[in-house]
Amino acid sequence: MKKNKLLWGARFRKPMAETALRFSSSIELDRHFYKEDIAGSIAHAEMLGAAGILTRSEAEIMRKALLEIQKEIEKGTLELPWEMEDIHTAVEKRLLKKLGPLGGKLHTARSRNDQVALDERLYLRQAIDEVRREIRQLQRTLVRAAKKYIAAVMPGYTHLQHAQPVLLSHHLLAYVAMLERDHERMEECRNRLNYSPLGAGALAGTSLPIDRGRVARKLKFDGIVQNSLDAVSDRDYLIEFTAASSLIMMHLSRLCEELVLWSTKEFGFVTVDDAYATGSSMLPQKKNPDIAELVRGKTGRVYGHLVNLLTVMKGLPLTYNRDMQEDKTPLIDTAHTVQSSLTALAELLSHTRFNVEECKKRAAAGDMFAADIAEYLVARGVPFRKAHHTVGKLVQVSERNRKSLTDLSLVELRRFSPKFQADIFPLLNPRTSVSRKRSAGSTSPVEASGF
Amino acid sequence: MKKNKLLWGARFRKPMAETALRFSSSIELDRHFYKEDIAGSIAHAEMLGAAGILTRSEAEIMRKALLEIQKEIEKGTLELPWEMEDIHTAVEKRLLKKLGPLGGKLHTARSRNDQVALDERLYLRQAIDEVRREIRQLQRTLVRAAKKYIAAVMPGYTHLQHAQPVLLSHHLLAYVAMLERDHERMEECRNRLNYSPLGAGALAGTSLPIDRGRVARKLKFDGIVQNSLDAVSDRDYLIEFTAASSLIMMHLSRLCEELVLWSTKEFGFVTVDDAYATGSSMLPQKKNPDIAELVRGKTGRVYGHLVNLLTVMKGLPLTYNRDMQEDKTPLIDTAHTVQSSLTALAELLSHTRFNVEECKKRAAAGDMFAADIAEYLVARGVPFRKAHHTVGKLVQVSERNRKSLTDLSLVELRRFSPKFQADIFPLLNPRTSVSRKRSAGSTSPVEASGF
Amino acid sequence: MKKNKLLWGARFRKPMAETALRFSSSIELDRHFYKEDIAGSIAHAEMLGAAGILTRSEAEIMRKALLEIQKEIEKGTLELPWEMEDIHTAVEKRLLKKLGPLGGKLHTARSRNDQVALDERLYLRQAIDEVRREIRQLQRTLVRAAKKYIAAVMPGYTHLQHAQPVLLSHHLLAYVAMLERDHERMEECRNRLNYSPLGAGALAGTSLPIDRGRVARKLKFDGIVQNSLDAVSDRDYLIEFTAASSLIMMHLSRLCEELVLWSTKEFGFVTVDDAYATGSSMLPQKKNPDIAELVRGKTGRVYGHLVNLLTVMKGLPLTYNRDMQEDKTPLIDTAHTVQSSLTALAELLSHTRFNVEECKKRAAAGDMFAADIAEYLVARGVPFRKAHHTVGKLVQVSERNRKSLTDLSLVELRRFSPKFQADIFPLLNPRTSVSRKRSAGSTSPVEASGF
Amino acid sequence: MKKNKLLWGARFRKPMAETALRFSSSIELDRHFYKEDIAGSIAHAEMLGAAGILTRSEAEIMRKALLEIQKEIEKGTLELPWEMEDIHTAVEKRLLKKLGPLGGKLHTARSRNDQVALDERLYLRQAIDEVRREIRQLQRTLVRAAKKYIAAVMPGYTHLQHAQPVLLSHHLLAYVAMLERDHERMEECRNRLNYSPLGAGALAGTSLPIDRGRVARKLKFDGIVQNSLDAVSDRDYLIEFTAASSLIMMHLSRLCEELVLWSTKEFGFVTVDDAYATGSSMLPQKKNPDIAELVRGKTGRVYGHLVNLLTVMKGLPLTYNRDMQEDKTPLIDTAHTVQSSLTALAELLSHTRFNVEECKKRAAAGDMFAADIAEYLVARGVPFRKAHHTVGKLVQVSERNRKSLTDLSLVELRRFSPKFQADIFPLLNPRTSVSRKRSAGSTSPVEASGF
Repeated sequence: MKKNKLLWGARFRKPMAETALRFSSSIELDRHFYKEDIAGSIAHAEMLGAAGILTRSEAEIMRKALLEIQKEIEKGTLELPWEMEDIHTAVEKRLLKKLGPLGGKLHTARSRNDQVALDERLYLRQAIDEVRREIRQLQRTLVRAAKKYIAAVMPGYTHLQHAQPVLLSHHLLAYVAMLERDHERMEECRNRLNYSPLGAGALAGTSLPIDRGRVARKLKFDGIVQNSLDAVSDRDYLIEFTAASSLIMMHLSRLCEELVLWSTKEFGFVTVDDAYATGSSMLPQKKNPDIAELVRGKTGRVYGHLVNLLTVMKGLPLTYNRDMQEDKTPLIDTAHTVQSSLTALAELLSHTRFNVEECKKRAAAGDMFAADIAEYLVARGVPFRKAHHTVGKLVQVSERNRKSLTDLSLVELRRFSPKFQADIFPLLNPRTSVSRKRSAGSTSPVEASGF
Repeated sequence: MKKNKLLWGARFRKPMAETALRFSSSIELDRHFYKEDIAGSIAHAEMLGAAGILTRSEAEIMRKALLEIQKEIEKGTLELPWEMEDIHTAVEKRLLKKLGPLGGKLHTARSRNDQVALDERLYLRQAIDEVRREIRQLQRTLVRAAKKYIAAVMPGYTHLQHAQPVLLSHHLLAYVAMLERDHERMEECRNRLNYSPLGAGALAGTSLPIDRGRVARKLKFDGIVQNSLDAVSDRDYLIEFTAASSLIMMHLSRLCEELVLWSTKEFGFVTVDDAYATGSSMLPQKKNPDIAELVRGKTGRVYGHLVNLLTVMKGLPLTYNRDMQEDKTPLIDTAHTVQSSLTALAELLSHTRFNVEECKKRAAAGDMFAADIAEYLVARGVPFRKAHHTVGKLVQVSERNRKSLTDLSLVELRRFSPKFQADIFPLLNPRTSVSRKRSAGSTSPVEASGF
Repeated sequence: MKKNKLLWGARFRKPMAETALRFSSSIELDRHFYKEDIAGSIAHAEMLGAAGILTRSEAEIMRKALLEIQKEIEKGTLELPWEMEDIHTAVEKRLLKKLGPLGGKLHTARSRNDQVALDERLYLRQAIDEVRREIRQLQRTLVRAAKKYIAAVMPGYTHLQHAQPVLLSHHLLAYVAMLERDHERMEECRNRLNYSPLGAGALAGTSLPIDRGRVARKLKFDGIVQNSLDAVSDRDYLIEFTAASSLIMMHLSRLCEELVLWSTKEFGFVTVDDAYATGSSMLPQKKNPDIAELVRGKTGRVYGHLVNLLTVMKGLPLTYNRDMQEDKTPLIDTAHTVQSSLTALAELLSHTRFNVEECKKRAAAGDMFAADIAEYLVARGVPFRKAHHTVGKLVQVSERNRKSLTDLSLVELRRFSPKFQADIFPLLNPRTSVSRKRSAGSTSPVEASGF
Repeated sequence: MKKNKLLWGARFRKPMAETALRFSSSIELDRHFYKEDIAGSIAHAEMLGAAGILTRSEAEIMRKALLEIQKEIEKGTLELPWEMEDIHTAVEKRLLKKLGPLGGKLHTARSRNDQVALDERLYLRQAIDEVRREIRQLQRTLVRAAKKYIAAVMPGYTHLQHAQPVLLSHHLLAYVAMLERDHERMEECRNRLNYSPLGAGALAGTSLPIDRGRVARKLKFDGIVQNSLDAVSDRDYLIEFTAASSLIMMHLSRLCEELVLWSTKEFGFVTVDDAYATGSSMLPQKKNPDIAELVRGKTGRVYGHLVNLLTVMKGLPLTYNRDMQEDKTPLIDTAHTVQSSLTALAELLSHTRFNVEECKKRAAAGDMFAADIAEYLVARGVPFRKAHHTVGKLVQVSERNRKSLTDLSLVELRRFSPKFQADIFPLLNPRTSVSRKRSAGSTSPVEASGF
């Protein structure tokens, strides 16, 4: 290793050991931030020019050189070897090579501490916008499916046991509602992080006459992080993002669990398109719902990143500590995982057919109407707890006789309550069951169609 | 166990096994929600009355009986044995005893699924308000300390190595800024959860003419949870709360780490009051900063609750599953831990003395001024990277000679750069160092006093 | 608070603030360790007698007094108020009251640091033995079920899609194998922790002539923890226990997921006994597999404790820090949760009926035999990859024609490969399929019966 | 994408969508297992030959071709594009190209389900051996340092407050003891996983006459995984490895925390070699202990992987589910992180100088001897609790008078107890303090030198 690859060697009597540098180099990860790093440097240079720390023309030369470096990275002509320690070093070294001493002025009133915080905030802001777009896309897919299957009924479950008939659309729209809160959380996280840390320096600010607000405006921030120690010390925005991402994945894992269930032979509620399923190397008949399984599995990955970041930050004294370099993998991989999972699931769903006949058949099973029967009795003056008891007995006896609730005659029913009349029978039908719902937010078609 | 302790026995041919009931009973935990449960029942009864499902006078009788039950619980005269399964059962059973068949009407158009969601939202709303108050209290304590020590300087650290002098007040205010974001997150979480799930029923709503909006207004919600399946299925608000709490604890763990460090003999920056320290059973001299250690340790507890909830909810199909009963311990204990940690820390801080002389002495060490010297050179036209290099060499040589940077003569300095003049010396002083800072948000006294 | 409730007040100028003591008191938790604490004190006193630090008769008096205290705690006549700080204080204070100055000799050459480490190791050792017994009990239940249903076939799944017929017993025995590894892990954890920390003192040992080995033997340890700093600093054994417990819960969560699935109307493979199911407060027909859901949910609780402990211990400098007091809740609750989950599941399983006809019907579906057909071709000389391809085509075509693989005629089959003969048909049967398996560890009845 | 890149396309009516394949392809990760995959295939082919499923010469041809493929991968001449889905597909496709129909026989009686389990076990076994070597290396480094500084004393801490003098060697050897348990855990994990899953097939075994034991012996396993469903379903060995790795990282994080503390100006106990420290881009004087910080930070990474795996496996029904593909990143990255952290720390330590004079100076502070004084009184017949109280008062008064315990005269001491004699003074010295320790495992030089 040659000493001059790094930015800070002068006070040391020997160069860094190769193994130590290799262990600590982050360039492999922070090459993901090259665009953000260069955008930040350009804004910084422009501000140095406006503040008189650079001349206007120096600032302009620097801007152009930085744009060239960006292109070199994009074309792959600028190497970013691990010996460079990080992306900031690689860019500044290249600038020095291009501009000589002028290149050495870029880092005036700046530290890698505020610079990396800037890069990560810019990167995260962009990632959040992408996640928000993908949430909207998945919501649209769900709404489209809800509209397509607007009249379809299916069994509603609690404890994965038959509970009451519901509309398939109502079920799908439940996920739209969850995703709406996810979208809100992402938006609020974005609002909270959208402040510029640049100008905090290593930790204390600077005696040079910089203009932090100018840099912030240039980079489309809503303002500056007010306390310089806070600016370089905290990563709560990253953790908030990872926590909000964990909630998204939690929600997706539930939908995926259902898709896996529904595509079993036993449920048979959906058929995944051949192009979105996989086979087996040994069992020729297999058609597996791998996309749903993978998204469900990737939940663990995002939860893990959340725990990682929380652990890293626990108990660190102010201000910057090198432990915080470990925030990069969780940031990059969480963003990628959430985005690609949302996309994959939206694609999967739009290539999945609901077998509405199968759904309806299950929803018409006798055990789906117990609550309807109880409410029938309540509407005829029976206190609810007594109505519940009566229907419970009805269930017990019909089960013992291996009959369905829908198979009982009026005579049989009236053995349990004299309130039963012939008008009970038309109710024992899933379409009727959902249509009779009157409460706000219920599974009534009126509610679903209002979406 | 007698069958009639439970609400749902009629369809079963035998009572629940004692071990099974004991394993599944949640009453020990949800007795924490008795107030919320009864408030919800009163609002529900009142609405049933307004909707004509009960008569007005039935509703009024029910309201009074529920208030009596609340008093019985508060006085401890109503037993809540584990055989009761949960608080909802205990209250309804008591109501049945008081009111006979009328008591059996309370649960009309209601399920424990929406009821427990209601109780938890009411409980959490209250818990968040308490947390927000405690955050404000800790912020006030920090601001008070910042004002008290407004002129004090201390060493600023990166990597726990001396970096630059900072104001003690600036350091304390960094935590105020972090807590401000924590407060915001709690507020947003509260806004998002403040919708009433009641009326969702078991999952599908009801055919009875209930008025969910009326219940919501009565209980001071901002509206109703729109989708009934969502209302009984999701717990994202609990996880969001636990994640926001984890961030609070992360922040507190850092402050506590610093308090522990600062109270060592080696740092000596603070002296904890005798009333807030503990001793040792074996070592008579010990005075330990236990409160700070415990708060730091309790970070693990809250992180654990977050992981618990995320794990529970992962991959559950809609709608309610009994796994979700496991949300209660994390909810109750997170609220309690965060509140008591905030309080304990505020009390500890207000009984902690900063040893400003010791802080100042450390802040005046020669290694604190390297950046000031570099900026001095920059202000005299040296490109920053060169200035950095020059000072680096200065450090290396003075270290080799076992000298402090502040001990060097002008002659010695000028060996490294001809730009050095006698006006460098007054700068090498922590008060001057912080006072010369000009950037927004820096450690300048101007910034700190503006708070 | 009165100062004299604590063990260490002399060097302090004021008593501990009530809020601080309340925040830090652990007695509510460590009352779980009273037996261990007293057993440790008796062994310590006896050793002090043998070593001449106490007289033999002093030691004997102390032993008797400690046993009396144990009885007082068990009878509930000795109060353990929070002001006592911890169980160690409560016991020593009571001893002082009983014995006067002699009571003050018990803590000679002992610190609460080594004492609490001792208590926890004794408690954990006992907890592990209980967990091991419960694992064995669940294994026996599974083996009993495997024997009972020895001839039953069921569909084997990958990706929750039909894969190949398997024996129900083979499936149940897979869990026995998993639990066997869990048992081993618990045993090894016990072996590793079974060393006595007592005599490590606060951290450095003592100049008094104690005999650590004697105490260790008395308490049935395999030896002493060799390094005194290690003895009071580490909690790896607790984390190892919690990790091994997490694996148990992971395994149980899978079995519970299956029980929940199998008890759906759609699968219908099992019927849970009425005494081990629960109903709904609103839906009269419901019979829910709550025990399985709760065990699955409690997985989160144990994972959470693991994360808690890992977080607490991260980055703590040696030796004891008060953060470590937070290890008690995870220890006690993990032990309780794992034990009760194992028990509940064993009880549930022994009250669950397998519907072998339903299992068999599903196992006889045409899509279960694709691998058998491919192996038939392989045995007749077709390279496996080609055989796989051939059967894949067969599946595609029969699916298009809405036929089952078992419905095809020889003529139809031979369109795909001339190797097919009439002897293929008897193979397309789940009993035959499992019986023909020849590989070690396969689902062949020969394998299962050997258990 | 062309259909024929995959192994299982025949039953599908269209090729996999590119986005779906890209989302599910694992080849980027499992290229890490190419060696294991090929070794497994060679063993499998050889067994097929011995079992008569292949001819001996077919098996030999296959073996050679597989070795060629390994070389192609190592030379980089064989592309492993993402379209290949996984390493198993890539290798088999290449084999088909090389050998034609014969290549199609390799996958006889094998599934990717048992194949990937094999690859991971082989990879993990190797990783554990590496970790064990690195643990031994770090232990040797610590022992070497302990020997080098055999006579050095330092302050021992509890609660990071001065407690009692200890030997630096005793402190270092505490970590050796922790690492010894880590080594044991790794060894036991290895023993438990060292069974061959190959031959379990997709889940049920096979009707072909394979010899699983032969494959196991060839690959140096201790036997076969007995239950075929278990063999393809479980990943407990991966989680056990990650948990044991988390404990290693927990231990390392503590040592690193100490190294960071000790290298502060305030402690000053160690000086890190220039080649193992880093500087700052803005602050020219900085010399930061980054290696220690990074290792401490990487603790979060490994904890995160543990949570990831636990989450993935929670609640998955048997047998293989695609979620389990997510086990690869945690496996590979945990192994890499633990190995490189152990190495980096060993290197750092062997390039770190302990400043024994500074350590000794701190260890000689008056507050270090309170326990020695109390034990002095105990040895003269004072009950320990009274001795503790007496010394506590001594501490309080000397602190009020701003005196050290070591500054008190005999007259002053005797005001607190008549037992004090002049022979107390020689004891108030860190060397004497440690030398007088007599208990097994104490900080006595006799103990340390015995290592």
